[in-house]
Amino acid sequence: MSDEQLNAFFEPMGVVVIGASRDENKLGFGVARNLLASGYQGRVALVNQKGGELFGHPIIQSLDQIGFPVDLGIVVVPAQYVPETLIACSQKSIRSIIVISGGFREAGKEGAVLEEVCRKIAIENGLRILGPNCIGVIDTHAPLDTTFIQPPMPSPGEIAFISQSGALGAAMVDWARGEGFSFSQVVSMGNQIDVSEADMLVLAARSDHTSVITLYLESIQNGPAFLRKVSSVTPRKPVIALKVGRSRAGQLAASSHTGALAGKNNAYEAAFRKSGVIVAETTKELFEWAKMLAWTPSLPKSSNVAVLTNAGGPGVTAADAIAKARLTMAEYSASTVDALTTLLPAAASVGNPVDMLASASPDIYAQCLNILLLDPNVDMVLVIAPPPPMFKSIDVAKAISKVISRSEKPVVVSFMGSTLVKDAVNYLRKKKIPEYRFPEQAVRTLAAMRNYAEIRERDYSVPLIPAGKLDIGRALEIINKNLDIPGFLPAKDAERVMGYSGLPVVPLSFAESISEAEEIAEKMGYPVAMKIASTKLSHKTDFGGVYLNLKSADDVRNAFHRLHERVEKERLADEVDGVFLQRMIKGGQEVIVGAVRDPVFGPMLMFGSGGVEVEGLKDVQFSLIPPSNHEIEYLLESTWAGRKLGGFRNFGKADLKSVKEILAHLSSLMLAIPEIKEVEINPVIVLEEGMGAFAVDSRILV
Amino acid sequence: MSDEQLNAFFEPMGVVVIGASRDENKLGFGVARNLLASGYQGRVALVNQKGGELFGHPIIQSLDQIGFPVDLGIVVVPAQYVPETLIACSQKSIRSIIVISGGFREAGKEGAVLEEVCRKIAIENGLRILGPNCIGVIDTHAPLDTTFIQPPMPSPGEIAFISQSGALGAAMVDWARGEGFSFSQVVSMGNQIDVSEADMLVLAARSDHTSVITLYLESIQNGPAFLRKVSSVTPRKPVIALKVGRSRAGQLAASSHTGALAGKNNAYEAAFRKSGVIVAETTKELFEWAKMLAWTPSLPKSSNVAVLTNAGGPGVTAADAIAKARLTMAEYSASTVDALTTLLPAAASVGNPVDMLASASPDIYAQCLNILLLDPNVDMVLVIAPPPPMFKSIDVAKAISKVISRSEKPVVVSFMGSTLVKDAVNYLRKKKIPEYRFPEQAVRTLAAMRNYAEIRERDYSVPLIPAGKLDIGRALEIINKNLDIPGFLPAKDAERVMGYSGLPVVPLSFAESISEAEEIAEKMGYPVAMKIASTKLSHKTDFGGVYLNLKSADDVRNAFHRLHERVEKERLADEVDGVFLQRMIKGGQEVIVGAVRDPVFGPMLMFGSGGVEVEGLKDVQFSLIPPSNHEIEYLLESTWAGRKLGGFRNFGKADLKSVKEILAHLSSLMLAIPEIKEVEINPVIVLEEGMGAFAVDSRILV
Repeated sequence: MSDEQLNAFFEPMGVVVIGASRDENKLGFGVARNLLASGYQGRVALVNQKGGELFGHPIIQSLDQIGFPVDLGIVVVPAQYVPETLIACSQKSIRSIIVISGGFREAGKEGAVLEEVCRKIAIENGLRILGPNCIGVIDTHAPLDTTFIQPPMPSPGEIAFISQSGALGAAMVDWARGEGFSFSQVVSMGNQIDVSEADMLVLAARSDHTSVITLYLESIQNGPAFLRKVSSVTPRKPVIALKVGRSRAGQLAASSHTGALAGKNNAYEAAFRKSGVIVAETTKELFEWAKMLAWTPSLPKSSNVAVLTNAGGPGVTAADAIAKARLTMAEYSASTVDALTTLLPAAASVGNPVDMLASASPDIYAQCLNILLLDPNVDMVLVIAPPPPMFKSIDVAKAISKVISRSEKPVVVSFMGSTLVKDAVNYLRKKKIPEYRFPEQAVRTLAAMRNYAEIRERDYSVPLIPAGKLDIGRALEIINKNLDIPGFLPAKDAERVMGYSGLPVVPLSFAESISEAEEIAEKMGYPVAMKIASTKLSHKTDFGGVYLNLKSADDVRNAFHRLHERVEKERLADEVDGVFLQRMIKGGQEVIVGAVRDPVFGPMLMFGSGGVEVEGLKDVQFSLIPPSNHEIEYLLESTWAGRKLGGFRNFGKADLKSVKEILAHLSSLMLAIPEIKEVEINPVIVLEEGMGAFAVDSRILV
Repeated sequence: MSDEQLNAFFEPMGVVVIGASRDENKLGFGVARNLLASGYQGRVALVNQKGGELFGHPIIQSLDQIGFPVDLGIVVVPAQYVPETLIACSQKSIRSIIVISGGFREAGKEGAVLEEVCRKIAIENGLRILGPNCIGVIDTHAPLDTTFIQPPMPSPGEIAFISQSGALGAAMVDWARGEGFSFSQVVSMGNQIDVSEADMLVLAARSDHTSVITLYLESIQNGPAFLRKVSSVTPRKPVIALKVGRSRAGQLAASSHTGALAGKNNAYEAAFRKSGVIVAETTKELFEWAKMLAWTPSLPKSSNVAVLTNAGGPGVTAADAIAKARLTMAEYSASTVDALTTLLPAAASVGNPVDMLASASPDIYAQCLNILLLDPNVDMVLVIAPPPPMFKSIDVAKAISKVISRSEKPVVVSFMGSTLVKDAVNYLRKKKIPEYRFPEQAVRTLAAMRNYAEIRERDYSVPLIPAGKLDIGRALEIINKNLDIPGFLPAKDAERVMGYSGLPVVPLSFAESISEAEEIAEKMGYPVAMKIASTKLSHKTDFGGVYLNLKSADDVRNAFHRLHERVEKERLADEVDGVFLQRMIKGGQEVIVGAVRDPVFGPMLMFGSGGVEVEGLKDVQFSLIPPSNHEIEYLLESTWAGRKLGGFRNFGKADLKSVKEILAHLSSLMLAIPEIKEVEINPVIVLEEGMGAFAVDSRILV
């Protein structure tokens, strides 16, 4: 039932416009105009209390007068009449409704109350509502246009655009027209009281006409639903998102380094990574990449790009852009070099970029392109063509388009210029061959292609935790005991929770006096660390509350003494319980591992360079929990801390397996005990391969 | 004289084309065609042995037949005839010559020889040569067009473009035409056997018609000349450069961290910073920024941007871009908020961005813009206009252009769309009001404006070294002694050179035996560090050759013993001379300071995070020597290591003054003794304010 209701947004049996208007200044006029002009094949009813006629179509005064089945309602009445209109629709079994009207949450408190009323009506009556405060949907293939944006309606295209900004939808429809590509569907989400961007994305992806889905996002309300729905689409069709509002994104709880570093942006980025969404940096790129992915049927096998040009400068520019986009310049096979050498003049360059020189004819362009595409070391080709002095750009376009149409490898073209390359550009657009004015843009689209190929190759499986490693019951016992105590868990309790979660911890031993400390240290074996025992001081090192590398009973006594003096001086005796002693682990590399909860996407893991400079160095990355194997690899490969574990200077290859286990166990803990708000282990000491990794200092916030 | 010769490239008294051709497939045809069609006001001679007539103009067979004064020669004869043509020109007192002909260095070894012959002829005969292998110059105001690029010639504009790629020049002339802006001068540099990009830049800057100079650079041959000439222009007119070939840029000498991190890119970036050049990331941006700077007479006072929009989405997008570009969202004064509140509907947003809602009329656009420009807290305004549903974009353009033309603050406009905003866009272009399709592009141009304002505000003065601090004579003595010894200077010698350069060093004391070491340590006072004394082992820590924090005679003995064992085990006795003892400095922050020599720009300073992870963290920046006060601030502010010196966690504000002195002294040393190839001080320990900074471990390569 719900599915049918969603389908009605793009393929309704019949449509009614409630609030259709004869006043050209009203949105109800534009909606009726666009719907009637769209070529929609079903029947259309226009409703307005005033009655009359519009575009030769009668305006009826009430829903009761509709004489044919209607399953999609478009509501353009003033906000205060929307609730009763929804009920009227429900009574007529119109259960899919687009509310164009504004004046809801976006207009202030009263609007927000009205919006809540509408939401309740929708739930009670089983209505699916798109909006309110949206511009509706366009399906260029149905065809259907429920919006009021300025005509003409976009021509049929391949890209679905789901936008949380209506104005952007309208602007991009027009911009795309000028750029020679178009949309399959355009959806404006409005205030999203019911239907979500993820619902519409799944729906759009079902259309055979849609090859790529683009998203303009300001915020996501239901993170888990977004992840689930979008993840079901990305293995089949590319999804590209532009997420805005980054500059306003606040921080999450900032009690620990992890909290201070984990902004909302990190959560969105992690969510896009988890669900295989390609992330665009700018509005323009969103569509430039979409055009490339829509018009290029096959994905690149790897990241090797061949550049073909008739001039040096743009070739070097492209090579720079390729390096910056983390693609690689293809190294040609010997037969390619031979073939190019035979074909081109002596002064030409047969390396990469291939510089055919300004004298290159359309035929030479085509032949060289063909040679490059045959090379197994070439995964993609960028063809660059500033206006050739001796030939017409259109002839180059014609010659290469034949080769490109046959190619099973992605090819992108950069005709540089404007009036001199106009015909060539239009020719390629008609052939649906992706082209961009500048080599840099073209390279970025190749990177998007490669990005999507890599997304499809990822290992999305989640590593399993061996049974018996996690003792949730006992961990929960400790958590519950501390639920009402503000701040971090006492250090010893934190250590226990870590232990029950299967994390290898270096145990802390509590001592209240010098003699006790000395005794413990002697048993433990030197060197030891001494840490102030306090649940109230959050940064122990700042206070000078940590003594490392104590090598003898003397050292222990001295440290205890100095600590005691310090506590007395700062009048902190009440805050301090005693000291902890901990066996020092020799050698190894230090990393930080943490976890927080994002309000939208839930628990999130952090990994990176630890120590006291965590927040300064910012060498950390985030991943949603539970992390897949790919996400764990990402954490390790995208941070210097992680890369270093692979071996660095006098440090051998570290025990990556143990680090991965710690990440997996911490994830399980966060999933199992929602009461835990934040965990931070700083440092985790990672020894050489096979020697393990150990949580030395763990903090838990409940 | 030389000046006159350079002037002749843009304002010749008379021009001769040598190699003018009647064959449409030859470049000599295109050059004659463009020159004659350009509207050039002087007299033109065409020379070709074959004689005849072209465009109603006689072709003479020899230079001797020219009957009027000519000071600019354009040579389009085959490469092998260029030398004799140059001599012939010289004999006719034609001393400014553009060699269009290709077939020189770019074509292989023989061409390189020919090029060298031409260079010698130029020197011997006092000729100034642009090229060879270039497409010549265009001056749209003179007017003059010596190129063969496809007509029409660009209309008169404000931007000079000096390009090391001819094809790019041609492509950009055409692209600019489509974008509605144009050039004052276009220069293609070719192989640059004589006239350099810096010569042409100075020349172009002299033209009243030129407001902005753009540079496309692949490489610079004479770094100091570039710095000197460009620095003379940037305080008066903005210079924007695109430097390509970054992906190919090799590393400098890699004996130290400093060497390994100092690629050619760093040198170019440092050179642009020193000379006040704005650096563009892409070809498109180069010109987008130039248009903004050319058409906007006044620079922003600070970085506060107001955003005016009729839709939320593009406003949020702009806010993101503003944060990313390190500009700030303006905070409006109370009177601005009042005025906007009075003017706009209740549901509008009067914060920043100002969202007037889709109903905003052209008049409302203009009134709001006016209000924002009057606010003293607003330095720049971005106006965003997706196609308004109820109004025409052209009317918005007309309304706001009146306000913008009167404004003394930079305003940039983003009409989003294509066909629906075409008239509006064309209107603004005619009024020379900068406009871009996307808010993100527009924001980047504002950042370029602010960047140029900041360039003009910089403190370019170089800090003076107090007399007597630098004892070059004695430093040089030590350097000379080591000139023939490969590798780094012996540690003790390096320490001495640092000392003579006025750097505060922590002295090393050499010991050959345990007892000697113990004795020295006792005198020195604990804790001490022990370092292996060897000129042959480069990374002492990797070898385990450094023991820190030795607190007693026992510790010293143990360390010596372990070191000895290690040396024996690795059979390195011959490589090791003994040990150094050094007093440990307690507390403080560690940074790295280094210096290398770039082959183009000369000595270069490095500053950043030190330790063994220097190359992994890459928290370092470079500056050309001698650094100005601004460049020293840059080193300190653009690195985490530098920012941290301002105070961080339990570290108080560090002694920045002493760090600056170390940078200045090291610079003086590099300038005074060219024999020094590399210096690296890792670490410099920086104590709290007033307590000094100390070079703990210095290495010098000669």
